[in-house]
Amino acid sequence: MVANPARRVALADAAITVLGEQGARGLTHRAVDVLAGLPKGTASNYFPSRAALLLGAAERIFVRLTPEDSRVGEIEASAGDDTLVDYVQYVLERLLAAPQLALALIELRLAAARSADVAEVIAPFLRAGLAADVEFHRTHGLSGGTDRVVLLHHLVDGLVLDRLTVPLQPDRDPADVAAEFVRALRSR
Amino acid sequence: MVANPARRVALADAAITVLGEQGARGLTHRAVDVLAGLPKGTASNYFPSRAALLLGAAERIFVRLTPEDSRVGEIEASAGDDTLVDYVQYVLERLLAAPQLALALIELRLAAARSADVAEVIAPFLRAGLAADVEFHRTHGLSGGTDRVVLLHHLVDGLVLDRLTVPLQPDRDPADVAAEFVRALRSR
Repeated sequence: MVANPARRVALADAAITVLGEQGARGLTHRAVDVLAGLPKGTASNYFPSRAALLLGAAERIFVRLTPEDSRVGEIEASAGDDTLVDYVQYVLERLLAAPQLALALIELRLAAARSADVAEVIAPFLRAGLAADVEFHRTHGLSGGTDRVVLLHHLVDGLVLDRLTVPLQPDRDPADVAAEFVRALRSR
Repeated sequence: MVANPARRVALADAAITVLGEQGARGLTHRAVDVLAGLPKGTASNYFPSRAALLLGAAERIFVRLTPEDSRVGEIEASAGDDTLVDYVQYVLERLLAAPQLALALIELRLAAARSADVAEVIAPFLRAGLAADVEFHRTHGLSGGTDRVVLLHHLVDGLVLDRLTVPLQPDRDPADVAAEFVRALRSR
């Protein structure tokens, strides 16, 4: 196998599209080859197991959701108490602007629930992501330790699941929901 | 078609199992007939469209998750400020004790995101469920109007998605996470 980074990215992006459009059950190496317009067997060369393919998709989702440094800088420069509100709203904004990525993340978790092999590779990846986020909060002076950051993750996950599927309050701005939540935590 | 309520329930239960085990994409009338051990075409007789089948599953999930009156009574009789903590913990307990139902609810939402026909029947059902929950909170003296109840739904959804798939903090008791959240809201 010749390592071709661009091809690897194209395959991971195709895997994300399949996950977002068809759900985890539709994700096969063959479906990825077809969508990427590559010969049968290409996805298997780069990602030898289904778990590896799902991990490749997960890594690529996080790359594509990476915050822009300039925006994070703006948020940091903004007024004190509302920094965490702005930051969580920015997380939410990125997820809602990329429905396919956000839905694929949910599908990845569901795939992990159904397969121990998938859970084994996805769990350490997601937990490392949490640890990195806790460190980001710490170095950027945002309040919270691990427990608080996990609460924020749960709220954002629940809110994204709601907004991208069947919004219970379609007329309410999700940014306001996030702000209400962060302010409630801050007052503790 | 002869209406047979027990058969309708058996079909809805089979639909839930398929949803929970295989995801929304695996849910076909044929898969439900096979799992229920009924002749081909039975599920189609009771639920003429895929959207009707998903609504049947949704209705049955809510029936199966109905709280026990005796437990709600106990919670109501408990000390004032912690009533909402106890109630949310009871909601969480029921969902985590029935992983198949909880995962099927997430799958229903994902199916609605992928099909306007499904969204059209699932959305009013879920919104009616929210209205009933807001009314339950009001009549049981639990604080919060619609906005607060929706925040609770988001948190519980995010927490359930986490615990039933890839728990970010596997050693932490989810009941404690729910309590931390409700107490944060109460202090506002």
